[in-house]
Amino acid sequence: MAADRHGALCIGLDLGGTKLAGALVAADGTVLHTTKLPSRPEEGADQVVEVVVSAVEELTGLAGGREVLGVGIGVAGQIDPETGAVHTAPNLKFREFPLRARVEERLRLPVAVLNDVQAVTYGEWTHGAGKGVDDFVCIFVGTGVGGGVVADGHLVRGATGSAGEVGHMTVDLHGPLCRCGNHGCVEAYAGGWAIAERARAAIAHDPVLGAALLALEDGDLSRVAGETVARAAADGDPLALRIVEETGIALGAGAASIVNGFNPAVIVLGGGVVDGIPGLLAIVEREMRVRALSAAVDHARLVPPVLGGLAGAIGAATWLRRELGHTGEI
Amino acid sequence: MAADRHGALCIGLDLGGTKLAGALVAADGTVLHTTKLPSRPEEGADQVVEVVVSAVEELTGLAGGREVLGVGIGVAGQIDPETGAVHTAPNLKFREFPLRARVEERLRLPVAVLNDVQAVTYGEWTHGAGKGVDDFVCIFVGTGVGGGVVADGHLVRGATGSAGEVGHMTVDLHGPLCRCGNHGCVEAYAGGWAIAERARAAIAHDPVLGAALLALEDGDLSRVAGETVARAAADGDPLALRIVEETGIALGAGAASIVNGFNPAVIVLGGGVVDGIPGLLAIVEREMRVRALSAAVDHARLVPPVLGGLAGAIGAATWLRRELGHTGEI
Repeated sequence: MAADRHGALCIGLDLGGTKLAGALVAADGTVLHTTKLPSRPEEGADQVVEVVVSAVEELTGLAGGREVLGVGIGVAGQIDPETGAVHTAPNLKFREFPLRARVEERLRLPVAVLNDVQAVTYGEWTHGAGKGVDDFVCIFVGTGVGGGVVADGHLVRGATGSAGEVGHMTVDLHGPLCRCGNHGCVEAYAGGWAIAERARAAIAHDPVLGAALLALEDGDLSRVAGETVARAAADGDPLALRIVEETGIALGAGAASIVNGFNPAVIVLGGGVVDGIPGLLAIVEREMRVRALSAAVDHARLVPPVLGGLAGAIGAATWLRRELGHTGEI
Repeated sequence: MAADRHGALCIGLDLGGTKLAGALVAADGTVLHTTKLPSRPEEGADQVVEVVVSAVEELTGLAGGREVLGVGIGVAGQIDPETGAVHTAPNLKFREFPLRARVEERLRLPVAVLNDVQAVTYGEWTHGAGKGVDDFVCIFVGTGVGGGVVADGHLVRGATGSAGEVGHMTVDLHGPLCRCGNHGCVEAYAGGWAIAERARAAIAHDPVLGAALLALEDGDLSRVAGETVARAAADGDPLALRIVEETGIALGAGAASIVNGFNPAVIVLGGGVVDGIPGLLAIVEREMRVRALSAAVDHARLVPPVLGGLAGAIGAATWLRRELGHTGEI
């Protein structure tokens, strides 16, 4: 069954609050064509469906007559694993929206919907940094901290599609308030917003220590952001280095929890904050190895992602292919 | 295939440092006969193999002529998922011991080996508190804190067999030293040894506050244990209640990390510490629900285990049956 459809293609879409990135993907994960459109959630959910349809039609037109098996969509939101409906997706203004059903209705093609970070994780697992292992975790540190988990050769979606929220694992039960309402989540230390908040508080508390950081934003405290800390750390500023150290310790403690809980062979650590602060990965690795059980961590590798911006589209396409039973090269 | 062997039985063994508990288990999880033998690790690994053989021969003799498909063994140690060898099992004095190969050689029956807490988890999942769900976590709080995870309908063993070490997830990165070398693990607050340590430190620090606890052990600080705290808490002693509260908060933060990471439908919380402190489960549940993401926790149930002392043997037998492809009623 798999073999005779091996030449067929799948479309993968990464649907976020501002844009939709799409790719026409072969069985081996090769991207043949891409597209990018504004997702326009402000015009309503039905309009977003039309954007999806446009992207699919564009990519199908580029398939050169090769069969397109269906469409996988990674969505920045909470997805019902059974129905492919979107429970909530704040940036897309979706609420209990039957995305899979609506898109299938319009396209007359099989559609699979999964969370966007789970799609990235699936992409990195099948065609990127996690290729060939059965136990794999992704951690992405941007403004927020998200992630995804593959356990025993299966993407873990969880009972309600929410698995892999590694940014909201508690690492300091008395720690700072997180945006999620909990205290001391990984994100409450390592998310871009948390780094910025901690920097601003430290500058206000000790203007002398904070002078160099503040100067980078021309004295405007409100403009001090994660990037400011990254730049000051690159210059060797003591306060910025301290904030980076705290960030790495919290991420490392979270990574240790992940290692002890899931025992992955490979952990991907990526995202804007990690990319922007070159010393961070080493601190995370040090803390992870000191804190995790040696039986679990000794053979684990901490690595950067390899697929880049198309990971979500590749993952969504590959997920759809798997759902259809055409596993191709995987 | 499954149907024609459905009447066949499996043997499950729970092999610990002091005793071996065995059961003759039917496809539906029913226990037909049990046995219990001292495991005698002090006489060497080969002697432990003979104890295993004795238990299997005894149970096979009780099978009344029904076919015995094989033997599943849950071992208190770190197991290689591929080979069934025991990397380390301190209480059994095993180190790199090829348990599966040795037992198969002696018995001429298929043998499967897995970690003992993973076996309990598998038992509770297939025939106990987790029956019917695909995402399931067990947390057992005794002297140490152990656990096991089922994700997407699969027992998670991890890349090196160490998955499910939920007791060593960090909940307080600046917290007390754990026996594993990390700081602020769940176990460093909630393990029986940690409760006892915290109680003794508090009594030493404030003898007036600690008087009631100390009196329960006739003034002998060294005898103050987790059970002492449980008894004092039952009497309403303020220090004991504070220690119970701290224990519940740490366990609840750990449970929230588990919920956010794995998104289970059911979480089992059991073990001697939970059984001994009736108010603890309610504190854990409160903290878990406050701390975890509502999308992940709203439909999650926190429940006690149901299989009791035979969970490990039932789980090991059922795991072996699955390995052989005879899933029976599962």
